[in-house]
Amino acid sequence: MATASKVIKCKAAVAWEPNKPLVIEEIEVAPPQANEIRIKMVATGVCHTDLYHLFEGMHEGGFPVVLGHEGAGIVESVGPGVTEYQTGHCATSFSFLQRDTVIPLFLSQCKECRFCKNPKSNHCEKGWIADRQGEMSPAESRFTCKGKKLLQFVGTSTFSEYTVVNQMAVAKIDPAAPLDKVCLLGCGICTGFGAAVNVAQVEPGSTCAVFGLGAVGLAAVMGCHFAGAKKIIAVDINPEKFEMAKVFGATDFVNPKDRSKPISEVIAEMTNGGVDFSLECVGSVGVMRSALESCVKGWGVSVIVGWTDLCDFAARPIQLIAGRTWKGALFGGFKSRDGVPQMVQSYMDKKVKLDEFITHNMPLAQVNDAIELMKNGKWYIYILYVYIIEDLQTELYKDKH
Amino acid sequence: MATASKVIKCKAAVAWEPNKPLVIEEIEVAPPQANEIRIKMVATGVCHTDLYHLFEGMHEGGFPVVLGHEGAGIVESVGPGVTEYQTGHCATSFSFLQRDTVIPLFLSQCKECRFCKNPKSNHCEKGWIADRQGEMSPAESRFTCKGKKLLQFVGTSTFSEYTVVNQMAVAKIDPAAPLDKVCLLGCGICTGFGAAVNVAQVEPGSTCAVFGLGAVGLAAVMGCHFAGAKKIIAVDINPEKFEMAKVFGATDFVNPKDRSKPISEVIAEMTNGGVDFSLECVGSVGVMRSALESCVKGWGVSVIVGWTDLCDFAARPIQLIAGRTWKGALFGGFKSRDGVPQMVQSYMDKKVKLDEFITHNMPLAQVNDAIELMKNGKWYIYILYVYIIEDLQTELYKDKH
Repeated sequence: MATASKVIKCKAAVAWEPNKPLVIEEIEVAPPQANEIRIKMVATGVCHTDLYHLFEGMHEGGFPVVLGHEGAGIVESVGPGVTEYQTGHCATSFSFLQRDTVIPLFLSQCKECRFCKNPKSNHCEKGWIADRQGEMSPAESRFTCKGKKLLQFVGTSTFSEYTVVNQMAVAKIDPAAPLDKVCLLGCGICTGFGAAVNVAQVEPGSTCAVFGLGAVGLAAVMGCHFAGAKKIIAVDINPEKFEMAKVFGATDFVNPKDRSKPISEVIAEMTNGGVDFSLECVGSVGVMRSALESCVKGWGVSVIVGWTDLCDFAARPIQLIAGRTWKGALFGGFKSRDGVPQMVQSYMDKKVKLDEFITHNMPLAQVNDAIELMKNGKWYIYILYVYIIEDLQTELYKDKH
Repeated sequence: MATASKVIKCKAAVAWEPNKPLVIEEIEVAPPQANEIRIKMVATGVCHTDLYHLFEGMHEGGFPVVLGHEGAGIVESVGPGVTEYQTGHCATSFSFLQRDTVIPLFLSQCKECRFCKNPKSNHCEKGWIADRQGEMSPAESRFTCKGKKLLQFVGTSTFSEYTVVNQMAVAKIDPAAPLDKVCLLGCGICTGFGAAVNVAQVEPGSTCAVFGLGAVGLAAVMGCHFAGAKKIIAVDINPEKFEMAKVFGATDFVNPKDRSKPISEVIAEMTNGGVDFSLECVGSVGVMRSALESCVKGWGVSVIVGWTDLCDFAARPIQLIAGRTWKGALFGGFKSRDGVPQMVQSYMDKKVKLDEFITHNMPLAQVNDAIELMKNGKWYIYILYVYIIEDLQTELYKDKH
């Protein structure tokens, strides 16, 4: 049921131009239009993709923009045509006052297109990503600031106290889930975990190698462990990361800088000819090759998880002719609206770790500090409390109990 | 039951050195040793891999050699430890006089190693191919000629009236099968057909593209058709091949020379964004890239079938990250001793075509003519009658009927 709503004035971190610090501004967020949901953001992570847009993407016309895509929040109001998401304002005598808690998604799931209907794929033809001309594409948003339109980032724009997202890009989650933890499921953790579980389809008793131990790589380690792998080789040139990899399930550790021979040979010696599954979580074409070559012939599967688009990846044809498979995926192969609530549930059931990924908690006002820390490679993931979280969570729990 | 046997003198086509015509010589074929089978060859195809060894491989120490690996024949005698294969000489009162008809295999299947035991793979750790130091490796053979040892080619050496092969590289087939047809199942036809059916796992109603319409590509077209594909796009720069591709099930035809845009774009337009499955049957890294890019994002699978090892294949990472899979296989993914008899049965049941691949029939003495024709790209497959086939088949049928 659509709820009447007005323009909201709130705080947001605005990226006015590339390569400059974000500016905390008061912005206007217009009411949600048809099929849209306005979300009161509670928490958001900072991801390398935000930095990529700010420092490397340099898309012409990509600014001013509100970045952020790893958020979680509460439905504030909905536009016409939205029936599956409840706000706190439409309680009836049949239901207690409740607000749906949600995670906005950079990958939509319309559930109607040929990609959504195919169980093999998590693509969607209708999201902003499909052709960047659909609804809520970068050129479209409900944000204005000082009379200027602000762009929407990957359909989400979570660095704002309020954002408006199309309902096909919103996952409804367990209202008891702590939003300052599960917001991480909006991107990196699902990407790494799903690459192991959904894409590589790691099997019980198998051997795995994960290249690169950032948040995505650690999540991939966790996915291998979740799937029952017996040997999980963590590879990174920074040995400080091995301790954390162990927390997520890694059993063996290789620092390429300590080795004189190619890593594929080192791994072949550790595993009788190569691992069953390898995951590249760096975004380097050289590492992609190494990850493929580290797989056993006959049935080895290598998955490209890390992102780069500056040059080709390559290998000798015999690598595949010998029976290896080379795959890749966006968002760990999860169909977003189906998969994210399941991952939230896995976290609530203590089958998936999230707390261990979080190294800093900061208010939105410190967003530039978070970005600087991340640029300097200071560990994994930074949670920004976009809104005064205590207030909202208290309010939520009051509603429920 | 092992049969006592002696040295046989017979005719063979000997490759004394690279880049020279083969010479029909009288050679000696020693009795089979433990686990070996001496086969009276009936017919053999000529394959590009034979030519590759002769003209391009130039392996040091790879000569003199008896080439040929697409043969079919009859068990003449067996060495100690061979119990599953019967010769004509060991009939008992409980069995009619019979001789097992067999296809020697360049890919062994020992049924004991970890590869043989894994249903995902058709590799075998024990064959000549595994490390080239095992039994019947190139340095090992039962052939001599003029006092010199002749090498065994890929474990088979079918350009001889008799050859000796390890039992783990011999498929026992339906004795009613015409050996001058089913010999083709020793290499190219299984390679192309299996790439579609076993490796790509083409699905009913799917769209496919096959790049390159040599024997392997035509067999891939046949595999796509067998698997129920609704659209099979045949791609070749020689439009003369389209007519034959139609015989095997191709529905659409693209000559890259007639197009000004990349073939992946042409195919995307023909198929609403790309085919579900593509097969590269040329052995060109440029075509491998094009075949991958011709697949639909989300779930497209591209299989490398053609052989080259001179340079890298490559693509942009987004091609895989967008959900495509890149695979490859030897021998179409068939476990050789299991798969070849099944393919023979499919031929006998008229589910698989073989006769249509055969363009020439010649005696062994014309082997150099066959090689010249193949070098000049004169169509597909050439059958050499190594032995006087009428005699043998008559004898066989007499035994059975």
